[in-house]
Amino acid sequence: MWLRTSCEITFDIAAPTPFILMLRLRSGAQQWVASEEYRLKPSVPVYEFTDMFGNLCQRLIAPPGPFAVAISADVKTSDQVDQAPGAPFVEVEYLPDGVLSYLLPSRYCESDRFGEMANSITTGQQLGYDQVKAIESWLRATIGYEPGRSDIPVSAVEVNTRQWGVCRDLSHLGIALCRSLSIPARLVVGYLYGLKPMDLHAWFEAYIAGRWYTFDATQAELKGGYVAIGYGRDAADVAIYNQFGPPVYPITQDTRVQLIEDKYAR
Amino acid sequence: MWLRTSCEITFDIAAPTPFILMLRLRSGAQQWVASEEYRLKPSVPVYEFTDMFGNLCQRLIAPPGPFAVAISADVKTSDQVDQAPGAPFVEVEYLPDGVLSYLLPSRYCESDRFGEMANSITTGQQLGYDQVKAIESWLRATIGYEPGRSDIPVSAVEVNTRQWGVCRDLSHLGIALCRSLSIPARLVVGYLYGLKPMDLHAWFEAYIAGRWYTFDATQAELKGGYVAIGYGRDAADVAIYNQFGPPVYPITQDTRVQLIEDKYAR
Amino acid sequence: MWLRTSCEITFDIAAPTPFILMLRLRSGAQQWVASEEYRLKPSVPVYEFTDMFGNLCQRLIAPPGPFAVAISADVKTSDQVDQAPGAPFVEVEYLPDGVLSYLLPSRYCESDRFGEMANSITTGQQLGYDQVKAIESWLRATIGYEPGRSDIPVSAVEVNTRQWGVCRDLSHLGIALCRSLSIPARLVVGYLYGLKPMDLHAWFEAYIAGRWYTFDATQAELKGGYVAIGYGRDAADVAIYNQFGPPVYPITQDTRVQLIEDKYAR
Amino acid sequence: MWLRTSCEITFDIAAPTPFILMLRLRSGAQQWVASEEYRLKPSVPVYEFTDMFGNLCQRLIAPPGPFAVAISADVKTSDQVDQAPGAPFVEVEYLPDGVLSYLLPSRYCESDRFGEMANSITTGQQLGYDQVKAIESWLRATIGYEPGRSDIPVSAVEVNTRQWGVCRDLSHLGIALCRSLSIPARLVVGYLYGLKPMDLHAWFEAYIAGRWYTFDATQAELKGGYVAIGYGRDAADVAIYNQFGPPVYPITQDTRVQLIEDKYAR
Repeated sequence: MWLRTSCEITFDIAAPTPFILMLRLRSGAQQWVASEEYRLKPSVPVYEFTDMFGNLCQRLIAPPGPFAVAISADVKTSDQVDQAPGAPFVEVEYLPDGVLSYLLPSRYCESDRFGEMANSITTGQQLGYDQVKAIESWLRATIGYEPGRSDIPVSAVEVNTRQWGVCRDLSHLGIALCRSLSIPARLVVGYLYGLKPMDLHAWFEAYIAGRWYTFDATQAELKGGYVAIGYGRDAADVAIYNQFGPPVYPITQDTRVQLIEDKYAR
Repeated sequence: MWLRTSCEITFDIAAPTPFILMLRLRSGAQQWVASEEYRLKPSVPVYEFTDMFGNLCQRLIAPPGPFAVAISADVKTSDQVDQAPGAPFVEVEYLPDGVLSYLLPSRYCESDRFGEMANSITTGQQLGYDQVKAIESWLRATIGYEPGRSDIPVSAVEVNTRQWGVCRDLSHLGIALCRSLSIPARLVVGYLYGLKPMDLHAWFEAYIAGRWYTFDATQAELKGGYVAIGYGRDAADVAIYNQFGPPVYPITQDTRVQLIEDKYAR
Repeated sequence: MWLRTSCEITFDIAAPTPFILMLRLRSGAQQWVASEEYRLKPSVPVYEFTDMFGNLCQRLIAPPGPFAVAISADVKTSDQVDQAPGAPFVEVEYLPDGVLSYLLPSRYCESDRFGEMANSITTGQQLGYDQVKAIESWLRATIGYEPGRSDIPVSAVEVNTRQWGVCRDLSHLGIALCRSLSIPARLVVGYLYGLKPMDLHAWFEAYIAGRWYTFDATQAELKGGYVAIGYGRDAADVAIYNQFGPPVYPITQDTRVQLIEDKYAR
Repeated sequence: MWLRTSCEITFDIAAPTPFILMLRLRSGAQQWVASEEYRLKPSVPVYEFTDMFGNLCQRLIAPPGPFAVAISADVKTSDQVDQAPGAPFVEVEYLPDGVLSYLLPSRYCESDRFGEMANSITTGQQLGYDQVKAIESWLRATIGYEPGRSDIPVSAVEVNTRQWGVCRDLSHLGIALCRSLSIPARLVVGYLYGLKPMDLHAWFEAYIAGRWYTFDATQAELKGGYVAIGYGRDAADVAIYNQFGPPVYPITQDTRVQLIEDKYAR
């Protein structure tokens, strides 16, 4: 399906503030960015680089006063999410080198603390896809999904204690559980068509049978319409924006995802 | 200045043909891509990756029949080319690791064969920027610039023998001469505002005094308006398209660069 | 000074177990590995790769029974630790791209939780080296260094709560405090000549005035004799060994560092 | 088999000369370096980095006077060379991203000039391994292997014209022929047990059926005992040493490969 995604964030900046933005979509195996428009208001010099996870990042200094970042894109993505019940676990010795770092604990995914719990949740499941599906179902049934209730990132341990979270929190717990079973897992930040309430979204992917599969405990069933912005070990790696110096909070954030016709092959 | 660049290439494909395209602009230190639109007609699945030089590359299989690739972008680039007479040579031991490979000979820049000639052209020049400027002037004075006369890449040795070339050929000879003096040099492919006749363009950069500087022997004087598409050791690394299997030639290629107003900060 | 370092670790393996070892020394800016010997007993196939931080990692499957890993090296390292009182803070906008990820919170360094505390510890200090030196002094004065008391990694928040730790724990807290001040910081695992009791060691580095400086809160004063094995955001990235499947603990670990004569230039 | 490899090169240096050495063996899929000793006489500061092909490179400045580089290693390598008659060609669209650059022409492998010739040599062969084997046989039968006759690198076109070459030259022509058939190919520099006369050696690898296979037109039949030092597109990428400034030639070079007993698992 063809989607038009857009996100506009405005800040009120007190003093010149260095930002690293991660808002430009990447084309890749799963999606094709046919057009993109990126505005900064006011316009400032920007320098773009690729981080160690392959994400395109923009460095700039936001000037004092109102500062807006607006990006929109027309992107082709899949109508459905690939699912593969029974797809087998990849033994650690056969994982590609580049996937190994997704087995390690990270800031918000303390996988070193979840071994027993992950075994208990996945008891009786076939190793691989079915284990992760059991984790996703367990999250859906157990952890209250409360979109918008919080914006302070908390870790998997904390989410498990308080038993509720935003999309990112559920994903962090899912990732920690996967990794504790030696299944590589990573966080994806992006857009989801039809998400209610509409906002930027986060879900997770697990590496099974030689490729990454999508999981999302916030949705009753997985439909298509996912558009990825960035990939990383957890939210520390894929912040839509990092700013340095005194904290700066967004004043407004407007996110939209619409279905569009394919005008790009005409 | 703000420019709208566009390039449309059409092919007549006989059998399904794998292509690697390198047409997407990168934002970077020197330019900012505010919007971009990329069309394939007919639409086919595309997979994008980053090559070892940081260029964004698109892999696809072109289907039999007419096949068109069209990309346009609004991009901010510098009004003028930085020049730095007297900027000093960087001794090899102080070059960053990532720059060293631009000292080596490559397919079209046989720098191992130009030591004497480069010394002769740059006799009396201060080491660094002034040497490269002398090379650029020598190219301008000596090698006939004949845009459009040829599209088969030839190497620096061949260009030096036949004494004429397209933009890419002059750049290859310039690069070979720089490298033979232990000055890192690389090819840039992109657009140039005001180029006559309008076409895709190639120029070269040399690493002097800690940064890359632009050189272009095809222009009487360096003005701004350069927009980079890709960087590499020479044209073998930065082909706008590589196709595999029986050769496929473009039927039409339409390249445009217009001055536009800045609408991106409003 | 020239040092001979050695480390031998033995395991009792119940079932075939995938390991990733990070024990091979890297030569680099600060040290030169003149010779190295690496034994696995029994011998098994090993595959070596470079991780995203540049560390050399060895993948293998340990067979059931006793399994020993022994590595020794002759390495030249500095007689003293570079110190630079007054060296200035690098504003985030001037940091190299590759250093930015060392500003982010990580598994054991929750820098997002230490802003106030870091400001309080460094009040009145000049921005840069002196801030980090104040952090190192504060750690030395405040957090009990209890080598060998624990081998379960705990995070900076936990270390700060319990007020004691092993070398790694003190470093994690130091790193978290630096990052919360926008100073890039990373963990180093390696050897230290004269360490008492002798063991593998961990310290931290902070990026100041364009380079990395060494800090170590476990030592009353910084002398030379540091030999690095691996670098990373924290101990999750630079485990000397990671094993997958049921946990496997070392039975014995023998670490040695001796002063040797330079025989390598004769 | 276990081999002890050694190489000692001495230079007579007139003025301080920057060198980049590539002499340290890498452990990898095919070989395991159990011990290594690396001497520089006189001893000078060395800085090591990893190049874009994954090779370990050492940067240093050689001081005036006699300068010797000596490296020896105990390494386990395969007793035989894997061969796979009939192994299929990988269509370009299925090649991993990282392999694509080995399809492009390079300094000494002008694959853009060998399409017809490669087709003629491989007529009737099954696509893939058998094509490369036919190229290797053709080289063996056609191009005179004259070890030690020359040390100036020449390109595949030049080798094909003069019809003789050293090991590197035969490999360059083999690589150019493979790439012109859309088979990725790369140069390997290293040691070969039993090579006569003993010297550093070069051979080539082609990517077939999902992995790299070894080919060597200088040997009547492929036995084991290959030890790789470096990989690259051609000899421009994998020079054992690159020096900058006025040329410096080795005075002596002593290369040895002996069979040793396995002492590393005792």
